[in-house]
Amino acid sequence: MAKELKGLTKRSENYSQWYNELVVKADLAEASAVRGCMVIKPYGYAIWEKIQRQLDDMFKETGHVNAYFPLLIPKSFLSREAEHVEGFAKECAVVTHYRLKNAEDGSGVVVDPAAKLEEELIIRPTSETIIWNTYKNWIQSYRDLPILCNQWANVFRWEMRTRLFLRTAEFLWQEGHTAHATREEAEEEALKMLNVYGDFAENFMAVPVVKGVKSANERFAGALDTYTIEAMMQDGKALQSGTSHFLGQNFAKAFDVQFVNKNNEMEYVWATSWGVSTRLMGALIMTHSDDNGLVLPPKLAPFQVVIVPIYKNEEQLNAINEKVAGITAKLKALGISFKYDNSDNKRPGFKFADYELRGVPVRLVMGGRDLENNTVEVMRRDTLEKETVTCDNIETYVKNLLDDIQANIFKKAYDYREAHTITVDSYEEFKEKIEEGGFILAHWDGTTETEEKIKEETKATIRCIPLNGDKTPGKCMVTGKPSACRVVFARSY
Amino acid sequence: MAKELKGLTKRSENYSQWYNELVVKADLAEASAVRGCMVIKPYGYAIWEKIQRQLDDMFKETGHVNAYFPLLIPKSFLSREAEHVEGFAKECAVVTHYRLKNAEDGSGVVVDPAAKLEEELIIRPTSETIIWNTYKNWIQSYRDLPILCNQWANVFRWEMRTRLFLRTAEFLWQEGHTAHATREEAEEEALKMLNVYGDFAENFMAVPVVKGVKSANERFAGALDTYTIEAMMQDGKALQSGTSHFLGQNFAKAFDVQFVNKNNEMEYVWATSWGVSTRLMGALIMTHSDDNGLVLPPKLAPFQVVIVPIYKNEEQLNAINEKVAGITAKLKALGISFKYDNSDNKRPGFKFADYELRGVPVRLVMGGRDLENNTVEVMRRDTLEKETVTCDNIETYVKNLLDDIQANIFKKAYDYREAHTITVDSYEEFKEKIEEGGFILAHWDGTTETEEKIKEETKATIRCIPLNGDKTPGKCMVTGKPSACRVVFARSY
Repeated sequence: MAKELKGLTKRSENYSQWYNELVVKADLAEASAVRGCMVIKPYGYAIWEKIQRQLDDMFKETGHVNAYFPLLIPKSFLSREAEHVEGFAKECAVVTHYRLKNAEDGSGVVVDPAAKLEEELIIRPTSETIIWNTYKNWIQSYRDLPILCNQWANVFRWEMRTRLFLRTAEFLWQEGHTAHATREEAEEEALKMLNVYGDFAENFMAVPVVKGVKSANERFAGALDTYTIEAMMQDGKALQSGTSHFLGQNFAKAFDVQFVNKNNEMEYVWATSWGVSTRLMGALIMTHSDDNGLVLPPKLAPFQVVIVPIYKNEEQLNAINEKVAGITAKLKALGISFKYDNSDNKRPGFKFADYELRGVPVRLVMGGRDLENNTVEVMRRDTLEKETVTCDNIETYVKNLLDDIQANIFKKAYDYREAHTITVDSYEEFKEKIEEGGFILAHWDGTTETEEKIKEETKATIRCIPLNGDKTPGKCMVTGKPSACRVVFARSY
Repeated sequence: MAKELKGLTKRSENYSQWYNELVVKADLAEASAVRGCMVIKPYGYAIWEKIQRQLDDMFKETGHVNAYFPLLIPKSFLSREAEHVEGFAKECAVVTHYRLKNAEDGSGVVVDPAAKLEEELIIRPTSETIIWNTYKNWIQSYRDLPILCNQWANVFRWEMRTRLFLRTAEFLWQEGHTAHATREEAEEEALKMLNVYGDFAENFMAVPVVKGVKSANERFAGALDTYTIEAMMQDGKALQSGTSHFLGQNFAKAFDVQFVNKNNEMEYVWATSWGVSTRLMGALIMTHSDDNGLVLPPKLAPFQVVIVPIYKNEEQLNAINEKVAGITAKLKALGISFKYDNSDNKRPGFKFADYELRGVPVRLVMGGRDLENNTVEVMRRDTLEKETVTCDNIETYVKNLLDDIQANIFKKAYDYREAHTITVDSYEEFKEKIEEGGFILAHWDGTTETEEKIKEETKATIRCIPLNGDKTPGKCMVTGKPSACRVVFARSY
């Protein structure tokens, strides 16, 4: 077994450490010289590119277009929306100067005090303010609506405790910002994008999610409603994986964006915003991977198949190369991505462990006997099962196997979540069960006080009020007051 | 004619104003609330996405992978490479604080003086320093080489005089950063990427370029050699459109990146970097467009064909819709992108002018008579020529027309450049001819003094020493000293 793999902590020993090690060992990302900022390495970035491409297609299919807005935001813009500034001011990276100069003592460069900005600029923590300031000039009449823009960008939030992908000071994301003529249309848009996120998470990432709406306490700063998709990791904790906000007219009012409606009246524009980030990488890694390393859903794997030859001499290698060329041509024709690793500076055993660590969904191994028998050994990463199959129609076999893996890891994650989702009616039981992790469906009286009390006493938060859950009313497990429906509690990332 | 178009200044009146107006009127970009930063609007961004996608494919075909490195760079990193800091320190955006707080007088938020960074962070003007600091940990042996990474990112240079796309404080770009075991391999890489850029400019943007090497004076800060592609705009000025740098071992030495070579000796790693930016949008716009607006190369147009119906009543519109559906299905099958604009809130004349302004390569118009005759009116944007053709095999006709437009606008630009490239032997003649714009091929003695003198006296710079030019030696037009070959002089953006 390869050296890298040997070192991987088991999930059962220390889940958190297992994650941290896996991210680095599988060459996904690493810490940088800048506190809280990560380097996304090529293998990790290749997965992010697949995520981007698929989401981008889905955004375009739902009528959205991409645009780009400035990285820096005038400080005063943040103050325009009261809750927004409250939510973000404490974690802003602030640009105060626009020039360096040589230090007089020759020790390097120093900030040039003469180059101080009149108004400080903030590196965007999110772009509602700069975008609504721009939309003001784009919108006069209902004919200019809707505006359905998305932006792929980096954002910056000065987080104190950071973890690769899950919480970093700089992260990559997309942020959709839409403008509408009516409240109904904006609410519909916010839900539509929640559903796009849910569809993407389940059908591409193979990560089952609960769709719901956040409690007032957990809303985005400036939103009237925040919708969320919540996934369960293998340690039973929740990971908020994407949010979509109905912003009402808050930002339109803050930036005075009015339009002439169909009745020829001036009205403030209705807004949504929605985003997913490189945090999705964390969800992907933690949902499926095991003690041998990553397990990637075939639809997002940088390459879906790796082929490794085992040979005694160059003559045999040449024969295998030729045989494999026939197989790869057929894989390619079916749109299956692959890597043929016939490099001679690593032993097959090392390669096996390395590609397992990297989560390549399917491994094909061809040796001398396979060559004679027209067979190949197939291993599927999710179950580690091996089988020797004929090379005839191998491409169809692999295609079906990839579909099967995609479905299987979703089912596994779904079953795990179902097995770790319980219904609880008393606060005593809640306090006991929350220690075991998982989602707890319980009644809550709808107040922030009760929510805060539960959070303080148990470290559990309301992940969401599920959209499709049981709507039977009941009594709050803490106060006994009426509850409209059960909500999802969990400890979370 | 549409209102927007009416206002467009003619190139002959004021070329610079024509450009500025065109960028805004064609909905490509606009100034933002942040000095020197632009908003790239959806139509402009759609062109940039096409540029990105194509270049990204070409990078991957030549063995490169994408990665992502931090936005912020510790100030001290810049000082490590002497020329590099000299080149960039004066235009750096500096982050000094990581938090805002409420102003005591309730006037909004202010920088929290308690949240001052120990070491200031610079928004990357380019990423050599942070990347080479990272590569240090990735490289031990020649087996770890080459590293062929590219990054798509935003960068920031505090420019004093800015123009949309051509020179903005924030811009989008890609930056390739490669690490090699030998000098030869690095030099080969730098040239390979120059050729990729040249290929892209000519075959996709339809912009002819001169490939060459920069004089010492015009090199990238920290490079041993800077290769460039130089394009000629319609005012005869040069636009540097992409550069590729052979960095030698400068950054490896600055960040102590050594490797064990095949002879088991420690050696510093050899480097290249190369980049193109949203400046390419400027080149694209200025090379082809005319007094009616944009002219886009079909290979990069957001949509290649626009179809406009002309109808008397709803019944006729329905018949045209049906006929057009048949045409668009056939266009789609050939991979031709299109927009069918049957919106009823704009007159056909407005649509015509608007799509001309936006540079859509081909316009199809279908009216009642066309419906009867099974014909459609075809207009090509580059020449504005119209023709009525049969709907039979219209998709093939359009496909060939798009190819023809792509070739034609390249030829037009090429002919323009050739007509405005002259050979000059005396400095007197040079001073006279440079006033007319264009490229001047002249002999130069190879010294920075002479180069500076020419620049001061004529505002012309050496754009490059052409790689494929006439290699006949001669005498410097200014000093009479020996010259190895003619170099390209021009005024530039």
